[in-house]
Amino acid sequence: MKIAVIGTGMVGRGLAGRLARLGHDVVVGTRDADATAGRSDFQEWQQAHPDVGLLPFAQAGAFGELVINASAGASSLAALDAVGADNLDGKVLLDLAIPLDLSQGLPPTLLIAADDSLGERIQRAFPGARVVKSLHTMYFEIMIDPARIPGPHSVFVAGEDAAAKKTVSELLGEFGWPQDAIIDLGGITTARGTEMYSRLYFDLVGAFGDFNFTINVVRAA
Amino acid sequence: MKIAVIGTGMVGRGLAGRLARLGHDVVVGTRDADATAGRSDFQEWQQAHPDVGLLPFAQAGAFGELVINASAGASSLAALDAVGADNLDGKVLLDLAIPLDLSQGLPPTLLIAADDSLGERIQRAFPGARVVKSLHTMYFEIMIDPARIPGPHSVFVAGEDAAAKKTVSELLGEFGWPQDAIIDLGGITTARGTEMYSRLYFDLVGAFGDFNFTINVVRAA
Repeated sequence: MKIAVIGTGMVGRGLAGRLARLGHDVVVGTRDADATAGRSDFQEWQQAHPDVGLLPFAQAGAFGELVINASAGASSLAALDAVGADNLDGKVLLDLAIPLDLSQGLPPTLLIAADDSLGERIQRAFPGARVVKSLHTMYFEIMIDPARIPGPHSVFVAGEDAAAKKTVSELLGEFGWPQDAIIDLGGITTARGTEMYSRLYFDLVGAFGDFNFTINVVRAA
Repeated sequence: MKIAVIGTGMVGRGLAGRLARLGHDVVVGTRDADATAGRSDFQEWQQAHPDVGLLPFAQAGAFGELVINASAGASSLAALDAVGADNLDGKVLLDLAIPLDLSQGLPPTLLIAADDSLGERIQRAFPGARVVKSLHTMYFEIMIDPARIPGPHSVFVAGEDAAAKKTVSELLGEFGWPQDAIIDLGGITTARGTEMYSRLYFDLVGAFGDFNFTINVVRAA
């Protein structure tokens, strides 16, 4: 599948590299391709992943049959505006951004909470996109390789479009997620729960001093 | 230990009954003892738990060596005002309320989120109390009987006072919590994470159609 990953940070690069290793045609989208290509962290990564393209936002969006929002949550709406509504129309938009205010350090504060979520804002801003919120409840290395954490643990999907959630669930399967680990929370408003969980996530990072954990939802028999 | 449970709803009664069975001297505190004693749901419960006293907030607070806030989150500060700062001074105040707005039905919206929490507000309002936030991440029957959920699962404590967290951890142990299931998140600001987790909790209630679940934090070896 042709996949565009929006965002060239650690998370975007992690997803893009994993997807390319799985055989997908992958580009990463960025605001200023020359500036990104000049960044030493990106150059180092690009040398290890020569098969992943680098394109400006709009061209990346036009390329992708599936688009992954891995941009910083605080600037995701602006990034997706630059990708362009036309380039998102009818496509699955896998959103794994969290609206974090990192200006005061860790743990971050949420820019959106309680009665709204970034996932909902993205769906409202791009009504033609089939937004699925998933994967943002854990460190990116666990997203793309769940076996890093032993035993069963959970990943959540939220969105209005059942077929889009199925597409994302299949992609999660390619990453190594057992289908019974995937919990469909319901419509896109349930992005509120998983986005607000991020504060507990960062409090656990603070308590443990590492990112090597996630949560398993355990049900009574 | 003499324990005052503030709140006569399902959660307060569940805690009070369990604590009495464990041999503690327990009273439940209420705004209007006559009105509570006249409620049919309370009468039924009182008949099954004749050893639990019913007292107005301030008298309950004076009785308790440890005070448990099991009032509705939206009115917890008012309830604790009625309990009285003098009656909380120097005492462990186990707070398991969540600031839920239930006026629009389920899932509830949070009245406090992002940059504050009910736990912090209570600690600020009652600086002499040794507030510990715990247990509010699951259904009350699991709080007091964790074996209802098979296998390992987690409970969180947050608060400024290490000795108070130790007292609460021992109480959790009496309920059946293994000590290695208890995760100390840190200071009272970490109440933000567990309170905001409540939205994911209620989204899971919606997805599953029951309350018979909780989360286990799984770490890499």
